Order: sequence, then C-alpha cells, then structure tokens
Amino acid sequence: MRSRSVLSAGQFSKEQLEKLLETSARIEAHLQNHRQLPLLEEYVLATLFFEPSTRTRLSFESAMHRLAGRIISTVGVQFSSLAKGESLYDTLKMIEAYADICAIRHPVEGASAIAARNISIPVINAGDGAGEHPTQALLDLYTIRKHHSLAEKPVTVAFVGDIRYGRTIHSLLQMLANFPVEMIFISPVEIGLPDKYRDFLKNKKIKIVETEDIAALREAQVAYVTRIQEERFPDPREFEKFKDSYIIDREMVGKCRPDLIVMHPLPRLSEISLDVDDLPNAVYFEQAENGLYTRMSLLLDLLDVPFVG
Amino acid sequence: MRSRSVLSAGQFSKEQLEKLLETSARIEAHLQNHRQLPLLEEYVLATLFFEPSTRTRLSFESAMHRLAGRIISTVGVQFSSLAKGESLYDTLKMIEAYADICAIRHPVEGASAIAARNISIPVINAGDGAGEHPTQALLDLYTIRKHHSLAEKPVTVAFVGDIRYGRTIHSLLQMLANFPVEMIFISPVEIGLPDKYRDFLKNKKIKIVETEDIAALREAQVAYVTRIQEERFPDPREFEKFKDSYIIDREMVGKCRPDLIVMHPLPRLSEISLDVDDLPNAVYFEQAENGLYTRMSLLLDLLDVPFVG
Amino acid sequence: MRSRSVLSAGQFSKEQLEKLLETSARIEAHLQNHRQLPLLEEYVLATLFFEPSTRTRLSFESAMHRLAGRIISTVGVQFSSLAKGESLYDTLKMIEAYADICAIRHPVEGASAIAARNISIPVINAGDGAGEHPTQALLDLYTIRKHHSLAEKPVTVAFVGDIRYGRTIHSLLQMLANFPVEMIFISPVEIGLPDKYRDFLKNKKIKIVETEDIAALREAQVAYVTRIQEERFPDPREFEKFKDSYIIDREMVGKCRPDLIVMHPLPRLSEISLDVDDLPNAVYFEQAENGLYTRMSLLLDLLDVPFVG
Repeated sequence: MRSRSVLSAGQFSKEQLEKLLETSARIEAHLQNHRQLPLLEEYVLATLFFEPSTRTRLSFESAMHRLAGRIISTVGVQFSSLAKGESLYDTLKMIEAYADICAIRHPVEGASAIAARNISIPVINAGDGAGEHPTQALLDLYTIRKHHSLAEKPVTVAFVGDIRYGRTIHSLLQMLANFPVEMIFISPVEIGLPDKYRDFLKNKKIKIVETEDIAALREAQVAYVTRIQEERFPDPREFEKFKDSYIIDREMVGKCRPDLIVMHPLPRLSEISLDVDDLPNAVYFEQAENGLYTRMSLLLDLLDVPFVG
Repeated sequence: MRSRSVLSAGQFSKEQLEKLLETSARIEAHLQNHRQLPLLEEYVLATLFFEPSTRTRLSFESAMHRLAGRIISTVGVQFSSLAKGESLYDTLKMIEAYADICAIRHPVEGASAIAARNISIPVINAGDGAGEHPTQALLDLYTIRKHHSLAEKPVTVAFVGDIRYGRTIHSLLQMLANFPVEMIFISPVEIGLPDKYRDFLKNKKIKIVETEDIAALREAQVAYVTRIQEERFPDPREFEKFKDSYIIDREMVGKCRPDLIVMHPLPRLSEISLDVDDLPNAVYFEQAENGLYTRMSLLLDLLDVPFVG
Repeated sequence: MRSRSVLSAGQFSKEQLEKLLETSARIEAHLQNHRQLPLLEEYVLATLFFEPSTRTRLSFESAMHRLAGRIISTVGVQFSSLAKGESLYDTLKMIEAYADICAIRHPVEGASAIAARNISIPVINAGDGAGEHPTQALLDLYTIRKHHSLAEKPVTVAFVGDIRYGRTIHSLLQMLANFPVEMIFISPVEIGLPDKYRDFLKNKKIKIVETEDIAALREAQVAYVTRIQEERFPDPREFEKFKDSYIIDREMVGKCRPDLIVMHPLPRLSEISLDVDDLPNAVYFEQAENGLYTRMSLLLDLLDVPFVG
C-alpha cells in the first residue's frame, strides 16, 4: 500500500482543497498566539533539492520546525551519489529508511511521480522542471481566498507575464477551476495559454479572456504576475517591447479596482516596481507567510495527524 | 583523557561487536513500534563532510534525529575556512567546542585518526579516502547476521567486484574474521585481494578462495557486490570483459543457493540488475535501513548512554 | 516598530556590554553542569550565509541548539534565488515569515543594516565584507575580561598584523574603548591603524602606541594576532619581510609578560606557531568556546528571553 503523495495541483478535489485551506486557516490563527504547533515531534522530513530553491526549501523546513518536527536535507548539483551516476531510484529507496515524508525538487518533469511510485513514504512535489509546483498553487489559492472569498460571486483572476511556461500559473489555474472564477490571461502571444489548459478550462466551463493588452488588468480582482524571460523569444526586440509594457507600478495599480490584490510567486526582477510594496494591494510577501500555513496543513494531512490547536 | 573513537573496522573485539549488534537489534525492535528513541535529547552531533556523501551523512543525521539529538553540519569542497588555507587541526579544535561527537568524511586516509588524536570528543570515521569505512562494515555485518546467524556453522561470504580498492570490503572482512565464516573473492586478478588482507585472513585461519570465475557465487550465502571502475584497468578492453560477466541478474541469482543474500554498499551502477530488486534475496535497501540502527547503537555507545527501550 | 538588531560593535553602551558579558558568564557556568539551557524551544534562527564561514555559522547554530532552538540555514554563492537575480530585499522579506531571528553574513558592507531596516525580526551582523563582525568582538571582549578583569587598572592590548583591513580588530577596539585599556598597534605602516579609528580612540582618551616593532609585544597583556595578506602590499618583498618577523612562537611568548594571553580570530596560517598551542597563554581555541556563550547570551537578549539557569 502506497502512501498518499502530492504530485499535481490537479489531483485535488474541491472538498480536499477546502479541507486543506480550512486547516491552514486554523493553523494561521493558532500561530498568532503561539510560536509552535508541536504535532510532529517524532517525525522526520527529508527536503531533497536536486536543484536549488532556497525559498521553497526554507518554507518547508520552517513549516516542519513550527510543527516541532525534524529535518534532513540535501541541496544542489553536487548531490553526491548522483554525481557518481547513481539513479534517482536508488537514492530514494535509501531516503525511505531515513525519513517519514519527503519534499522533492528536481529539474526533470515527472521526477516526483517516479519517486512516489517507488517508495512507501509520502512524496511532495516541490517543483519538477517544466512540470508542476502544487504547494505553490495551494498557498496562492489560500492567499486569494483570504482576500476574495471564492464562495459565490465569481472572482476575476488575471495572469500576467509568461503564461506558456509559467509552472506556477499552470498549477494554480487547475486548483482555481474548482471555484467560481473568471480568468484573464495577459501575455504576448508567443508565451500565451497552452492549448492543453485552454481546453481544460473550457471543460470546466470557466470564462476566460486572452489578450496582449495590459489594460485588461483594470477588471481584475487578482493580478498574478510572473517574470517574462528573454530566452523565450526568438527575436530579442519582441522581448524588449513587452518587458517594459508589463511592469506593474503604483500608477497602474491606481487605475485598477481598489480590491485588486497583486501576487507574485517571487523572486521578482522588475515586473513589479518597488513602489508597489507599500500598497495594501501588494500581497506577495504575505504569500510567503501563507506558504508556511499551507505547507504545515499539508504535512499534517499526508502524515494523517489531525490538527489540534 | 581522550574519548573513544571509531577509526577502523579492525579496532573492535568480537565482544564489542556483539554488544553493538545486540543493541542495534533492540533499537530495530523498538522502532517497529515507535518513531523515536529519545535518549540523546541534549547532545549535538557534528557531521563534517570534507567530501560529499549524501547517503552516509543522511544516515548519521537520521540516526541522531531518531535519538532526539541535534545536528550541526558542513558539507563539500567549499568548506570555507579550509578554502582559506586553514589546517584541519584548527577546524576540529573549534568543532570540539560546538558538538559532543562528530562524524568525519575526508578524502585523505588517516584524517579521522588525526582528528581523534587532537580533540576530546569522540570521532567517527565516516570514510577516509582509500582507508576505511567502519560504520558501513558494521551495518553490513548486522545485515549478514540478521539473515545468517554467524553462530556455529560457517557462513560463506563471496565478495564480487573490486576487491583491491574496495574500502567497504576491507573494513567488512576484518569484522567478519571474528565470526565463523569462509570467504570467496571473485574478481579480475588486476583488482584482487591485497596481500595485506590475505595475510590477515590467514592469521585468523579463515578459509578463503580466490577466483576470476563468477560461477563460484553458487556456493555462497552472501554476495557482497561492488562496482568495478574502468580507471583501475591499464587496458580498457580488460575492463569491458569483466564489466559484462560480473553483472548479477535474476537468472544468475536463480542458479545460486536459495538462502543467498545479495548485498551492495550502494550506489550501484549496473553491477546488479534492477530485476533483482524484487527478489527476497536482495537486501541492499535493507542495508540502508540497518545503517540507521547500527549508527544509533554506535552513537549511544560512544556517548556512554545506555539503551533503554 | 522594528526589533533590535546587532549591526556594529560601536552600538553598545558599556552597560549593555556588561550585561551581555555577565549573562555569558552565567551561561558558561550553567553549561559546566548541563548540556543544554532550553530557553528558546519554540524559536527558529535563520543563518543566512551569502558567503561561507563554517566557523561562525556553526558557532551560531551550536548556540541555538544549546538553547534548544531550531535552525533554518542557507549557505554559499549558489544561494539560489539570488543567482536568479533576486534582490536581497525580497529574500529577506520571505525569511521574516520563516524565522524569529536571523544572522547574516554578506560580502557587501552594510548588507545587515539594509536587512535590519526592512524586516521586523532581529538581525545579527555575522560579518559584512570590510565592515564589521560585532559578535566576534563580543567573544573577544569576553575572553579578555575572563583573563584580565578590565575593571580598574588599565589592561594593555596589543594588536598585531593587519590593522588596516582587520575587521575583527576594528570591531573589538570599539568595544574595548568602554573599558580601562591601553592599546599597542604593531604592524607595517602600509597596513596600520586607519585615521578613523585613531581619532575615535583619541576622543575616547585611550592611550595608544603605534609601531612596526614586534618587540613592543613585551609590554602587552593581550596579543591579538591577525593574518597579514600578501595582496595588501604593492611590493611583494615588503610582505615577505613582515611575514617572517611577525610570527608568534614559543620563544617570543617566553620573552613576554607571564600573564600575556595570545588571541587569534582564526583561521590562522603561520602567524602563530603550533608550538604555542600547548602554552597556557594560548587562548585562541578558548575563544571559539566563548563564542558559544556570548552568542547564546545575544540570542536571548535580542529575543527578550531572560536567562534562567
């Protein structure tokens, strides 16, 4: 019998998401008055980062610490045995003996799924190449629901930037599709919505708008901004054109709905001006904090430990 | 007064080994029903890995966590002060103030012994270049004894692969020589048993067979397989010849004794086919697990903390 | 409201220093009979080392462990998000959500001050380029006071080596200026006392002597030795001249006051001969130990947790 694992944002039912979000909210409330929620005192989390991601790794480790758990960790390309030619499979079979749950970051799409098939402890996909990043999507969803209820009236979510390759966008739109939302995709056509996700949203009967015009942001209640990478464009001049027009600054936010929240998976380059940071609309640092609550919630769920506040 | 340290597989008496194995077995039994054995709650282990070895480091760290202890760790060539030219000696004198026990991996043979002479906390050799790897030998011994009692009737242990340079083989044969065993060494002559160990085994009155013929495996109750590295052969064609003939696969295991256990210190390349993994004979992943119990046992012993289950 | 941070050795009043030293001494006394002082059980320290420094990092981590606290850590140039171009600011805003206090090592002078201005948790400067290293100064001060009371009669402290660029010297002389001391600066003129610090000491009415002659050490009760780096000299022959003459060996210590203590921030190269290590005058390994007590004291103070032994 295999343990449950978190591999894709699409694997969750609405009910499962609501349960996770509800527990996350209870954890957040608990941590307003406590430094810890010591429910995993005897558990070991392995953070296996085959490519570096300081932010995601520290978020998982902080989540485990706040649950009073323990951590073994390995980071970077100098991942020793693999440098010697060892298969991912052999490495993971060893980790199985050393930890109760693991979070894996790997440059190859599907690596976490391979792991989950072969070991008996729960596996959390912490980002697999061009694939998915479901725990980022969960914290994003939690952040959106904190500001816009996602209950009855549809919430208008605009995705801005690299919609074609943006792993976090792909994961988030799958989760959001369980809730009353409308989506606006604002991007150069070169890096627009993949057919696969357009079809997915159509099946889910989600109303979407696709445009190159950043002015479409004015309708949105959520601006989910991602970085546009130069290497995605065959012609560098194309990149330059969009790079400038898609910068979210204080002036632009001023023209949008007052209840707009500006999100970013971080790290940002220049997509969001620093002058936005102090606006109440800016929630990208709150996202990092929410990552703590949602990951704590997920760790408890996967280890079958009930929340007791 | 210096603390006791673990530097070489040869330092243990049969009585000491039996005590360690016995405690390891009690720890294993305890962990069937508990996640932790919180006996080292106030202790700090330093894992000092001057060359990377994810598997060994994580095994030590997991062992310390399961004992409820704490860990400070440093990994890799970018070991900062050393990059600045600092002597190993100065580094270790500082560690002495920060930890209660340390495990050292170093590319230079004898590095752990130098450490043990100069600092007052126990030092565990976690692999020193072409030297030894005594904790690997201890977990190997534990694994063998779990499957074949090592009590009265001699157990036939075959070593396959690189017997000349295989550090884990050298450490294991020294420990095994305390028990009723017979040994078969199966390797190309170029990488056969060093004189030093042939003499050692002769003195210990251990019956040995040396051969290039993999068919000798049919008599064995233990196949301890190691990787053959191309760079050991002056003539690459020689390497190719052996590389193919020494692969342990399902078919070959089928021709051996039913009670054969197949061991490997891992990581493997192609020495053992993946189709062996599912056979009950395959114990190489169990070895990793046994590393946890034996290292826990060793940590307790070196810190003079009695096992209380 | 910002938390208190430790950015510069010069920020402390004499009263604050005496309080920290007093608590450090009580912690040291406590640890003679206990392995731990479990006062920070629910706290998380982030050690953010944007350049490696094994010694300083392990000292902070050991201090946190001895207080029963928890640690998240990131090390090295491969600091992932920063490699992707992320600003220090964004990184720190995320850390704020994950830890209760952080220690930062950064190659750029002033990096810790920037951090402290932007995040709400206490920041400890663990070395910022050519800037300061106040926790090293604190442990140095503690070490001096342990051997020479710093109460009424002035203590003569000699600084030997690179006085111009020696960050640890600059931090220490600022703290020492609060106590009855006289200072001797022994160095080649090329790397002598910066005007800024000469003026500072003059204002503080500290009697100082500046000389190239190592014989001046005979008057000293403290020899604070640092490494002279070849690259500081336009003419390599100048370097060679001083390199040899400034080596502290057993013979030289024999010509000095019997109550001389020899200090070094470590790592050393050849500035202090190994034959000094066994003399009672050598306290450089004791400094590393004192770093533990003083950093524990500082962590408690910044987190407003009173010492209870």
